[in-house]
Amino acid sequence: MTQTLILAADIGGTFMKFGLFEESGKLIHRWKIPTNTADFGSNILSDLVSELRRVFSEEGLNPINLKAVGLGVPGPVTGGHIVNGCVNLGWKRVDLSEECLPLLKKAGFPDVRVSGLNDANAAALGEFNRGDVPGCDLVMITIGTGIGCGIILDGKLREGAFGSAGEIGHLMVNPSETKVCRCGKKGCLEQYAAAECIRRKVLKRLHLPDNALTHKELPPLVLEDVKEAGEMLGRALAAISCAVDPGLFVIGGGVSESGDTILEPIRESFLKHSFHASHDATVRLASQRNDAGMYGAFYAALATLKNSRTTEK
Amino acid sequence: MTQTLILAADIGGTFMKFGLFEESGKLIHRWKIPTNTADFGSNILSDLVSELRRVFSEEGLNPINLKAVGLGVPGPVTGGHIVNGCVNLGWKRVDLSEECLPLLKKAGFPDVRVSGLNDANAAALGEFNRGDVPGCDLVMITIGTGIGCGIILDGKLREGAFGSAGEIGHLMVNPSETKVCRCGKKGCLEQYAAAECIRRKVLKRLHLPDNALTHKELPPLVLEDVKEAGEMLGRALAAISCAVDPGLFVIGGGVSESGDTILEPIRESFLKHSFHASHDATVRLASQRNDAGMYGAFYAALATLKNSRTTEK
Repeated sequence: MTQTLILAADIGGTFMKFGLFEESGKLIHRWKIPTNTADFGSNILSDLVSELRRVFSEEGLNPINLKAVGLGVPGPVTGGHIVNGCVNLGWKRVDLSEECLPLLKKAGFPDVRVSGLNDANAAALGEFNRGDVPGCDLVMITIGTGIGCGIILDGKLREGAFGSAGEIGHLMVNPSETKVCRCGKKGCLEQYAAAECIRRKVLKRLHLPDNALTHKELPPLVLEDVKEAGEMLGRALAAISCAVDPGLFVIGGGVSESGDTILEPIRESFLKHSFHASHDATVRLASQRNDAGMYGAFYAALATLKNSRTTEK
Repeated sequence: MTQTLILAADIGGTFMKFGLFEESGKLIHRWKIPTNTADFGSNILSDLVSELRRVFSEEGLNPINLKAVGLGVPGPVTGGHIVNGCVNLGWKRVDLSEECLPLLKKAGFPDVRVSGLNDANAAALGEFNRGDVPGCDLVMITIGTGIGCGIILDGKLREGAFGSAGEIGHLMVNPSETKVCRCGKKGCLEQYAAAECIRRKVLKRLHLPDNALTHKELPPLVLEDVKEAGEMLGRALAAISCAVDPGLFVIGGGVSESGDTILEPIRESFLKHSFHASHDATVRLASQRNDAGMYGAFYAALATLKNSRTTEK
């Protein structure tokens, strides 16, 4: 029997994380490389294909067996392959299929389907399939440079009527805010809970100038740094809960690496603001930690592959 | 061929509205009677059965043909027939099947299935099936004594992990509020947008004492009466939109009878607080007006009937 291989990639602003999977879900090789965001990220997809070629050659794998590539990207994706701008990668509109397929063909991979999805949606899919309670509806929140959110209801990733389901970074949590968010509104969750706001709190606590450290160079966070972020995240979770009442909220992304320091204030605020019937909802850290996105990209690629087989029949 | 008949009832705190339907959805008789809430609403279900008996007799219908009864009630319903308290009816826990079936049998209706659902969910189902755009996902908001909400996503009424999907009356829209809501939290939507708050605004505008008029005796509303309600409803709609991005919000319930007076401030606030990608979402009045709940109760009963046929096969 021919072996079917699937590449999943979580393309972040700093690193690209790769997983080469068998169709069964068995991970056979994993590695990461820095993301080259120079020239509007124009080398990202060719770097990805070069890496694939290198690994297939080193591992003695047959390129004909690569059947699908799934890409998680930090921006909105429509139709399963059109990226509508990724600030952190330097991308404007990118059609992943159109750009990847010729590169893959040229590199000797003749039979591949390419699909993409938003990185928070990928993380949600990863947790849904591989988390502590596989198959449980969930709301995944990734706290990093921005606030990402992927929502799975009735087993299905929610896209929304205008592709903006999960845009909770711009959910208004503070009507008294006077500063304007980059979206033009005031009081958005992202104004309190994104990595940049937390970085500023840390520097203030340490009495350091505003440009002393990047958010990747921060010392371990303490409660004071994330208290406001937790309060505002809890308000957003409570609002989501009043609307669709999911049983599970999963917290991921870079800031979630501070563990209970960020989790506890979120839980406290959620209990304060949510309707009593939903108090038993679970709020926990991603069980796949930073691999949730890579696993989710695999499940998206697997679905595309299965779908293509049905269509080709 | 035997005729199949279905009774749908929208049981409100003031009136019970009945519709007798053919299975095709054709409405063959409609009427309403006052709701008798005396003695903890203990006569409501027997009144309903007496009405059925009277109408079947007057119309010369055969009781064997009544196959299903669907009841929309102003409170939470689980499992399709357990009512967990209805303040406006005086009910505590009521098992609709268990209480209705013996009464129906005694009145000569031998072959009936009884199902119930929350009235806002019923209104959502009614609009989903009979609204301007049948089959379109929607969030139905009913503004009356309380704030009800029924959410249909991917064609399915959302119940929620703890049965509290659509509890947007207790979505926190004002973190600065100092008064406590009847749920124990502060700043809930219901504190600004329910009929009672609007009644108080009207009396203040008319320089009348606080107990001069009930909310059913109010003169036509003006913008001043509903401006705050509209602002807070718009905030809640925007929060729902950031989470699940439905394409359509439908406004119903008693207060919605003031038409554009309430609709315009909701729309204005929604545009102010929602994420730009969702600005094109439709916010409109229920196209079925106050009949949405009765139609929805019919569709719920029809689904129960179809389901029982599959099970009995």
